Amino acid sequence: MSKVSFDNRLMFTYESKSFPGVNKVAALVRQDIFLVTGFHAGEYKKSERCKNLIIFGTVDKSDYLKDLEEKGLLDLDEVRGRWEVYSFQVLDNPWDGVDHALVVAGSDKRGTIYGLFHISELLGVSPLVNWNHVIPKKRKNVFLTDEVSFISKEPSVRYRGFFINDEWPAFGNWAMEHFGGINAECYERIFELLLRLKGNYLWPAMWNSNFSMDGPGLESARLADEYGVVMSTSHHEPCMRSGEEYRLLRGENSLYGDDWSFISNREGIIRFWRDGLLRNKSFENVITLGMRGERDSKILGEEATLKDNIDLLRDVLKTQNNLIRETIDQDLGSVPRQMVLFSEVEEFFYGNDKTRGLMGDPELDGVTLMFSDNNVGYTRTLPSKEMMDHPGGFGMYYHMDMHGGPYSFKWIGSTYLPRVWEQMTAAYEFGVRQIWVTNVGDIGTQELGLSYFLDLAYDIDRWGGTDAAITEEYMNSWTERQFGAMLPLSGRNRIKKILWDYTSLLEKRRHEIMNADVYHPLHFGEADMVLRTSGEILKEAAALKKKIEPEDMSAFISLLYYPACGTANLMKMWILAGRNKLYARQNRIEANSVADELDVCVRCDAELIDEYETVDGGYYKGFGRSEHIGFVNWNEEDDRYPLRHLVYGANSPRMLVARADDEHYMTGLEWCDRPQTWSNMLRPDVDKVEFDLISGSDKPFRYRIKTDCSWLEFSKTEGEVSVRERITLSVNKALLDDKVTGTFEVENIGYGTAHVTVEAAPPLAPEGLFLESDGYICIEARHFFTRKDTKAGAFKVLRPYGRSGSAVKAFPSSTDFFGKKSRPSLEYRFCARENGQYELTFELAPTTPVTFDKGQFLGYSLNGSKVKIINTVKQPDRPFFQSVQWASEAKENVKKVTDTVKCVRGENTLTFYGMSPGIVLEKMVLVRQDVVLPQSYLGPRESYINLEGNLPEGFQEEKNE
Amino acid sequence: MSKVSFDNRLMFTYESKSFPGVNKVAALVRQDIFLVTGFHAGEYKKSERCKNLIIFGTVDKSDYLKDLEEKGLLDLDEVRGRWEVYSFQVLDNPWDGVDHALVVAGSDKRGTIYGLFHISELLGVSPLVNWNHVIPKKRKNVFLTDEVSFISKEPSVRYRGFFINDEWPAFGNWAMEHFGGINAECYERIFELLLRLKGNYLWPAMWNSNFSMDGPGLESARLADEYGVVMSTSHHEPCMRSGEEYRLLRGENSLYGDDWSFISNREGIIRFWRDGLLRNKSFENVITLGMRGERDSKILGEEATLKDNIDLLRDVLKTQNNLIRETIDQDLGSVPRQMVLFSEVEEFFYGNDKTRGLMGDPELDGVTLMFSDNNVGYTRTLPSKEMMDHPGGFGMYYHMDMHGGPYSFKWIGSTYLPRVWEQMTAAYEFGVRQIWVTNVGDIGTQELGLSYFLDLAYDIDRWGGTDAAITEEYMNSWTERQFGAMLPLSGRNRIKKILWDYTSLLEKRRHEIMNADVYHPLHFGEADMVLRTSGEILKEAAALKKKIEPEDMSAFISLLYYPACGTANLMKMWILAGRNKLYARQNRIEANSVADELDVCVRCDAELIDEYETVDGGYYKGFGRSEHIGFVNWNEEDDRYPLRHLVYGANSPRMLVARADDEHYMTGLEWCDRPQTWSNMLRPDVDKVEFDLISGSDKPFRYRIKTDCSWLEFSKTEGEVSVRERITLSVNKALLDDKVTGTFEVENIGYGTAHVTVEAAPPLAPEGLFLESDGYICIEARHFFTRKDTKAGAFKVLRPYGRSGSAVKAFPSSTDFFGKKSRPSLEYRFCARENGQYELTFELAPTTPVTFDKGQFLGYSLNGSKVKIINTVKQPDRPFFQSVQWASEAKENVKKVTDTVKCVRGENTLTFYGMSPGIVLEKMVLVRQDVVLPQSYLGPRESYINLEGNLPEGFQEEKNE
Repeated sequence: MSKVSFDNRLMFTYESKSFPGVNKVAALVRQDIFLVTGFHAGEYKKSERCKNLIIFGTVDKSDYLKDLEEKGLLDLDEVRGRWEVYSFQVLDNPWDGVDHALVVAGSDKRGTIYGLFHISELLGVSPLVNWNHVIPKKRKNVFLTDEVSFISKEPSVRYRGFFINDEWPAFGNWAMEHFGGINAECYERIFELLLRLKGNYLWPAMWNSNFSMDGPGLESARLADEYGVVMSTSHHEPCMRSGEEYRLLRGENSLYGDDWSFISNREGIIRFWRDGLLRNKSFENVITLGMRGERDSKILGEEATLKDNIDLLRDVLKTQNNLIRETIDQDLGSVPRQMVLFSEVEEFFYGNDKTRGLMGDPELDGVTLMFSDNNVGYTRTLPSKEMMDHPGGFGMYYHMDMHGGPYSFKWIGSTYLPRVWEQMTAAYEFGVRQIWVTNVGDIGTQELGLSYFLDLAYDIDRWGGTDAAITEEYMNSWTERQFGAMLPLSGRNRIKKILWDYTSLLEKRRHEIMNADVYHPLHFGEADMVLRTSGEILKEAAALKKKIEPEDMSAFISLLYYPACGTANLMKMWILAGRNKLYARQNRIEANSVADELDVCVRCDAELIDEYETVDGGYYKGFGRSEHIGFVNWNEEDDRYPLRHLVYGANSPRMLVARADDEHYMTGLEWCDRPQTWSNMLRPDVDKVEFDLISGSDKPFRYRIKTDCSWLEFSKTEGEVSVRERITLSVNKALLDDKVTGTFEVENIGYGTAHVTVEAAPPLAPEGLFLESDGYICIEARHFFTRKDTKAGAFKVLRPYGRSGSAVKAFPSSTDFFGKKSRPSLEYRFCARENGQYELTFELAPTTPVTFDKGQFLGYSLNGSKVKIINTVKQPDRPFFQSVQWASEAKENVKKVTDTVKCVRGENTLTFYGMSPGIVLEKMVLVRQDVVLPQSYLGPRESYINLEGNLPEGFQEEKNE
Repeated sequence: MSKVSFDNRLMFTYESKSFPGVNKVAALVRQDIFLVTGFHAGEYKKSERCKNLIIFGTVDKSDYLKDLEEKGLLDLDEVRGRWEVYSFQVLDNPWDGVDHALVVAGSDKRGTIYGLFHISELLGVSPLVNWNHVIPKKRKNVFLTDEVSFISKEPSVRYRGFFINDEWPAFGNWAMEHFGGINAECYERIFELLLRLKGNYLWPAMWNSNFSMDGPGLESARLADEYGVVMSTSHHEPCMRSGEEYRLLRGENSLYGDDWSFISNREGIIRFWRDGLLRNKSFENVITLGMRGERDSKILGEEATLKDNIDLLRDVLKTQNNLIRETIDQDLGSVPRQMVLFSEVEEFFYGNDKTRGLMGDPELDGVTLMFSDNNVGYTRTLPSKEMMDHPGGFGMYYHMDMHGGPYSFKWIGSTYLPRVWEQMTAAYEFGVRQIWVTNVGDIGTQELGLSYFLDLAYDIDRWGGTDAAITEEYMNSWTERQFGAMLPLSGRNRIKKILWDYTSLLEKRRHEIMNADVYHPLHFGEADMVLRTSGEILKEAAALKKKIEPEDMSAFISLLYYPACGTANLMKMWILAGRNKLYARQNRIEANSVADELDVCVRCDAELIDEYETVDGGYYKGFGRSEHIGFVNWNEEDDRYPLRHLVYGANSPRMLVARADDEHYMTGLEWCDRPQTWSNMLRPDVDKVEFDLISGSDKPFRYRIKTDCSWLEFSKTEGEVSVRERITLSVNKALLDDKVTGTFEVENIGYGTAHVTVEAAPPLAPEGLFLESDGYICIEARHFFTRKDTKAGAFKVLRPYGRSGSAVKAFPSSTDFFGKKSRPSLEYRFCARENGQYELTFELAPTTPVTFDKGQFLGYSLNGSKVKIINTVKQPDRPFFQSVQWASEAKENVKKVTDTVKCVRGENTLTFYGMSPGIVLEKMVLVRQDVVLPQSYLGPRESYINLEGNLPEGFQEEKNE
């Protein structure tokens, strides 16, 4: 077996005819090898004796490779002419005096680079080695055998990259601090990161910076080309010139005129574009076409018609294509170009009934049509069947950072991998395969999401598919790559959990739009859940931190501790803010101590940022600066930290009695108290109720609990309460024959008595039916009774997924089952207490329609009735993007569709059908018409189901877990 | 000129045949004389030599008087047989050896007592001398000449008294502290107070106390009779037995049975009543008839019909009358009896279309029908024309303290004299002249209101009438009586102002129902007004306090300092709470210092109570104990002190720019700021706008104000703001020819710029028309253009009156102008900016209809159109009392009636007609239909009117002031 050892005799070839960028990357890999082995690899000189040699090169740019091919030791035809492919071979004795060799042969510049970085990967070096200072594990006796030999595939997506955007205050300050500006020195770090992550494409920063001017000069662009990084400009900056360039160069006496208008200053603008194309023509680019207004605004005023806009854009496209022919290549088809259907440009592309859009316009032939997401990670329209063979293909501009509507999120990376997996895998299925670009803001703390995005784009077969659990696998492997050297497996497993936990919290609600009113402080225990999760993150992360060596602290803080604790602390802070507000409103004396805890969180937020920005000699300085607390506008303007509410205690001992999950309380006072009835123990799986005895005064109260009911038990029946005491009331259901009703009272001794009626029932329930209690039935979509697949498709469970943790979706993703005769379906069974009307709410992922006709349909039937089809788009007469629905769904990360149904008392069957693409169902809630559910963000917990008989299909997989 | 000197030779007659109570009062008067003169008056023995003698007695109970009458020195026929009348004569040499005499001859026991107390009155002794320890001014050479001789009138109202009620925790604790219970010793103090205030009638305390059992035994009742105090029981306690008596005496083996039910325990209840009548028959009483449920609840359940209730009551009345015949007097007509139409009993009295009520029932012959107020001081139904000659006459049960709906007020007396004047004077006019009783709670701090109520009942000719200014005269004389010895005139004048100011604040809103949301913290400067008034009270009262001698402190604290400062501090506290809340919501850093000021007020409240309860050796101990802060129910249950909201400053210097009277603000930030237009300088009398530069951060901001407009002037144009800076923008209107528009900007240097547009106009306006500005026209009702009187009646201005300070009302109060051909009217003229719809709101005193048919009408016409008549009762299908309208009007102390009118551009004439009784108009507001007035409690300030031409009639009086 051939074998090359990474010992002190390891050498690298060097050829001056190689791409300079390839040689630079080889140097990076030699550094990686040193980090692992402690040996500096030498530079091989032809005919030298060498024990272990790494031969690398690009087809037709390497004499060594040519020689090996001629000798028949290497078959370069397997890579030649292909896109970004490399062969990776371990050979013995390629030449005299060379004992063992690893040959990396790239089909092109980037093929070779990816091949070289593959060495690092095999040695366990993280792509973030230089970006986050992830120090690889030191190893002895490192070698590779020919078991690693292989030929790489062409990447799934041709152009894969990211967009540095919204760069102030974070990225901008970071760059100023370390490089004196957003210049070539700065970009070299970015290029390396991009390439190590298997990307190849970049949209540079453009808020007050000019990629092709600030290098200085063209230096950044030249360096990109050297590294094989394909450059473009952002979605609204045509012809390789940044928007800010025009602001700098315009003027009364400017060649380019003084108006960013293709109407009033056509000649100036054309000249501006032409000069840009000429300037950057020698580099590998994808040229943006089209035109928007300055600073990413609308190109024409509000009074312009759709036709005005489309006519203008048509003229612009024609002009730009002509300029490209004139300056770069008469064969336009060979020049990569893109047009981005961002914001209102989507409308201009599709047009409407009266006005033909740009779709199908010959000027777009060969132009990659870049679709975009809804600003928060759900794709908008996708290629339709008719568009499928569009020459130029399709791209996607995807946000992991946003400065704009419906809300900005620029602080800690908030990407939840399953969302990216589901949306981008579907987009790929829809044919979006030419360009993937993700907006990562300042990059700092976006590393996890960015890694996945680029790995998915590079190899969708590996990281895509129809099983959401692949994202767990990815997270595990990512954790191993970053933390493998740092912590033992037990610690890494804790990291995996923390990563899931904090990104799951963000999937429920992002940082910036958290506030005291999102989660209800008590109802359904949702605030408790957030507090518990946050508390565990903070505790676990702090415990792990103690085990981290100083040299690993940079990676640990930046990739785990800061984003996880920053998130957890912020969530905790807002939950406490909500509690403080509610407690204060109810005059609970505890409000004051909660205010103090809240204050600790506010200070902790600043401390976490400070720690992130000072660790590793201030390496991340700048990255923590984005405002992130209490947005009241779409951006940070007028944002505010939580309020603290302080109460004065009542003048006499005051008791409040409340169920732990209910904001309603009793005082036991004589005139205005409302006795309560607690019915939740009618639910078969509930035999306990927790309730609180709460003080509304600085003077403690003494209480006594009394009951005549033998079946009621209390964890405590008397005492004194200064702040709050939790009591557990339990019912020994084994003693019950039938539904029972009893009462108990809580006396605030000397001041009054609160009266509670308790209802309970034995734990009897029909098998396999979700059971109504407290007036509702809640079913998680994955818990279907039976599943019906058809030839056309089938439902699958997505898990993990969405704000509730799981969902179902009909595959294939791109199939529209609406018009199909047979549709896949899922059947749910439940038991209603009454004949009568129920409000049925479907909670869906907040996807947007894949077509521009504003229809996205779901279908269901109840008890075998005709299939009812509902358009989930609430205002089909206007574009979905930027609608009220879009904004609220994007914030809450849920689409709620409600209908009224008639249930029968007893068993009911609800069937959910595959219908429009993009329908992803998380759960369903039926509420009896006379019932008002307690206000909450996440809704009620799932209803009880008796699983003793034949296990419903939706539970079978879980049963095996 | 005859003359009696109060020197060391002054003596009092003593006759053992006198009423013992009269002799006791004589002793009190002798004590008063000692306080003034320093001389103890001796006791005269018949035939003794005496320089100065006070002869007192009751017609036919005094040998001295008989002798003088026989001698022709006294004409007792002038008083004989009359009700509570006395003659007061200065004589020389009535008998040998007696040089000078003052003869006080009463027609009856109380006539003599009032005559004796008249001596104290003439000496400047306050009726509160022993109640509040108002120490009279020491005087030398005191004498009375025959100029003071006169014969008193019969009192206007036959029975005049008060009700000690809602006595826990205040009165109860006071009585326990000083007398060990609510017993005869305690009542003796009350009887003296009542008689000195010229009252004669008392409803005793009945929460857990029993007047006829706790004396001990009948001692209190006996003592009352001795003093001539006529006793009754409260409105729901028949036959001279308190409600609590039944609770004590009932039981399984009780003679009285064990159920307060006239259905199931008829015999027991009858026996209970009979025994009560027998027990108290020898005393002077007014016997309550009727029956309610225990503890003042409904007698029958909710399911009982109106007829059930009426039939039951008819049976009860008949039974009670028979018992009275049996036990007291066959001649029922000679036995004073009352039935109180309180709460739902009013319905039983009137009945409805289908069910005849008790009205006109023969069992009510000779029974005084007691009407009542709406619980907050506005009378409910009053005797109708048909009822007028009801034998037994009418009474009024009036609340100056309330424990019940719509809200309780038990703390500091909150009576505003003009309300009592207007309502009780009208009631008198309606024939309510037999009994007046006011509920004064614990009496403490109710002294002012109670004094007026009893003085008005005693002499309505003196203190009633149609000019509200009589209440100012009363307040002045009351102030002189209490503080005349304590402070010089300048100080007493300050006291008069304080008294008006604090009771005016309470007329706008009572203590218990104040909260942070009543007054808007900024709009229309209403919070500033409350803060200013409160601040002045606190400052002035503190300054006066320094001048008070220790021995006067008891009266000063109890009658002025505590009620005034307690009120002012509470009002200030809530205004600060509202500011704190708004400031916090807007992230003004000032919120935190306002929270600190608020905290000072909370502590001050406790300190003021403590001072009141400890002054004068703890004499008022108990009286301060009623809860009074932040009621959220009708009573104090679950009440809460204000919240304090604390903010964190923004991370960077943040500017807020806002008009001082507007909650809307600008930040000057780039994306989300909304520039403002300030139009208030279009109003002719406005040439200044105050605005605030406010910090939203702990980091101060630096500002610069810039404008191109030469006519805009700023009090300051640059500086640094840490908390808030007020800037005055002024316009030199003399420079303006026409309406102008200009702009200015305020830069938060380095962070943004706010933009303001200013509109201004020259001060030109048509004469005599109220002018629209900011979209509204507001007219105070007293500012009519012309007044039209008719034979039937005329409008008069009431001032001071109501929450706005003035009003108009058509007199006579009891006339219903609805059906009259000619009605008195007032005409208002105003200028509207537009042709179009305006919302016209009449702000009226929250009176209730005087009849039970739920109609209370106002009438108006605009520009000569037909008179539009509106029923101010919003739900005429249900009783007004306890309606939603009743509750909200009672809290806000205003009735708002809104209609939509069409105005013409330019001059409009609005005529307001006399219509139903009880209509009292305070102001009118017209709002253009597209305008939303800023939220406020008191509404906008009055519109501008150019008064240069012929002065509108409504202004003429003010012009002369």
